[in-house]
Amino acid sequence: MQTNLLHRIRSEVERYWPPHLAAVIGVSGGPDSMCLADAAITLGRTAVLAHLHHGLRGDEADADAAYVRDFATGRGVPVTVAHENVSALAANSGDSIEVAARRARYAFLAAVACTNGLTHVVVGHHADDQAETVLLRLIRGTGPTGLRGMLQAGPVPGAAGLTLLRPLLRLTRAEIDAYCVDARLQPRIDSSNLANDHTRNRVRHELLPVLERFNPGIRAVLARLADTTAADVDAVAYATAQAMHALVSDDLTVDRVGWRALPVALQRGVLRACVQRLRGDLTDLPYAAIEEARDVLNSDAVVGEIALMRDVRVAVRVRTFHVSGG
Amino acid sequence: MQTNLLHRIRSEVERYWPPHLAAVIGVSGGPDSMCLADAAITLGRTAVLAHLHHGLRGDEADADAAYVRDFATGRGVPVTVAHENVSALAANSGDSIEVAARRARYAFLAAVACTNGLTHVVVGHHADDQAETVLLRLIRGTGPTGLRGMLQAGPVPGAAGLTLLRPLLRLTRAEIDAYCVDARLQPRIDSSNLANDHTRNRVRHELLPVLERFNPGIRAVLARLADTTAADVDAVAYATAQAMHALVSDDLTVDRVGWRALPVALQRGVLRACVQRLRGDLTDLPYAAIEEARDVLNSDAVVGEIALMRDVRVAVRVRTFHVSGG
Repeated sequence: MQTNLLHRIRSEVERYWPPHLAAVIGVSGGPDSMCLADAAITLGRTAVLAHLHHGLRGDEADADAAYVRDFATGRGVPVTVAHENVSALAANSGDSIEVAARRARYAFLAAVACTNGLTHVVVGHHADDQAETVLLRLIRGTGPTGLRGMLQAGPVPGAAGLTLLRPLLRLTRAEIDAYCVDARLQPRIDSSNLANDHTRNRVRHELLPVLERFNPGIRAVLARLADTTAADVDAVAYATAQAMHALVSDDLTVDRVGWRALPVALQRGVLRACVQRLRGDLTDLPYAAIEEARDVLNSDAVVGEIALMRDVRVAVRVRTFHVSGG
Repeated sequence: MQTNLLHRIRSEVERYWPPHLAAVIGVSGGPDSMCLADAAITLGRTAVLAHLHHGLRGDEADADAAYVRDFATGRGVPVTVAHENVSALAANSGDSIEVAARRARYAFLAAVACTNGLTHVVVGHHADDQAETVLLRLIRGTGPTGLRGMLQAGPVPGAAGLTLLRPLLRLTRAEIDAYCVDARLQPRIDSSNLANDHTRNRVRHELLPVLERFNPGIRAVLARLADTTAADVDAVAYATAQAMHALVSDDLTVDRVGWRALPVALQRGVLRACVQRLRGDLTDLPYAAIEEARDVLNSDAVVGEIALMRDVRVAVRVRTFHVSGG
């Protein structure tokens, strides 16, 4: 079983981290990131370890930084350790300590990547983290896009030009702990749970135990739901791109007859993609505006104009409609 | 506000129940079905009410049946009331009372539809029911297809040739109760909660209160998630049909190069659709078999054969693959 576990963790890393891609590994010193770092080094991946000291938790944090530095030295891998005063950052920005810490961490990882000429950052999020993320988004009210949870590969928050990889996303916390025992790692345990905000901690301690009474495998179930939803969201994006190609001209004149024959999700996708082309982003485009426009375009209205949002209008014609700005 | 509420309920019924469609309304005598029946009759829909006495709960059930009969008579609408011995059905089939009762109800509604030459059955499921259904499926481990919850329009269970409509699916239980007060209905309250199985009752009484502590609007959030997921699932089905048209010949030879360029959900969809064409259904097609076939077809394997399931083989060639039975 130990051999199976090692095999499984290594095959996940191999699957989601291409062999010749050098990357920064974000390392707190905890079990997740130490498992990741150990597996990556064992598999011969080229990596720079990066650890941010948050200027909180005094001696304990000093010992975390020392542990990461010793590990890197022992394995002959470069490491960057930086100090940040997260309390001051939070006070200045008005954010919570957790939010300020998260932003500082990703800014630091992005900086280490740039300094080393690297384009990828790898972190140790696992299936239990994913289950919590899915539940948090579910509770706040998400659609399929949010229900995908964290992605195996996505942009680094605050540094969209860099890619964030999460090769451990299908492994459970229990598997990672077992790997650490097996590999004789002695990861640090963060007693303050600094990485987690208040609501995430409540999800872990109040909600997940209730869900486990219904289904002991609930964490795996939620992580798998995120996977299958992500696949559907990708397919909808692909089908939307095909519809754009078939129905929309360069000046954003849309074949209304063809558009009306599309399923609802693709009707929405085409309208959003037109706004995206026109304005470069979708910020401030309300869901209700898309639905109101759909109502008109699906009706027998033959002429008129819809204000989709500030500076975006839709001119309604019999067999086409035209999206324009200004 | 009362006027708004009436308007809202009526506009939902008008949206999902075409004006000239005569249908059977399943009526228990409770608030949901009485709201539905009252709104439908007020809007001039042609309907036959249908009530099944389950042979349980003695006098209380007799009074439910009498209430429905009196309501129908008072409004001048035809009604069919039948008796069933659900305890005996459950004992014979080995099912729980709840499962036997549900099956007997839908069989009865289908029979009333057939007797009256009708193709549609309408029931009073609402957004609170939908939230529970979504949670039940989430807990059991569902993909996007299950997360759609109950559909506004779908097949009648056990009678696929008939269509089941749920026009109240976006209305909350509170809105339905308010409608009943406003319309001076005095619906019956089923003290045994016979319509609900044990797990559904636990979801309602153990899980939903915990989720409401995180977000008081959780029921609406879950019902909306079901809506947006249903739209994505429809779009994936549409895109799969387009891919079948573009890449698959009548004898189920598939353009392997084109198939490899598809997003994962459409690769899966095309393989499943081939099996569907070959065998007429997808029963017994394991998820893992599809994934193993995808691994081979996405690899550089140039020749060989995959057993997708009993009696379904995939012959792998360089630029195509061929799905066949026997």
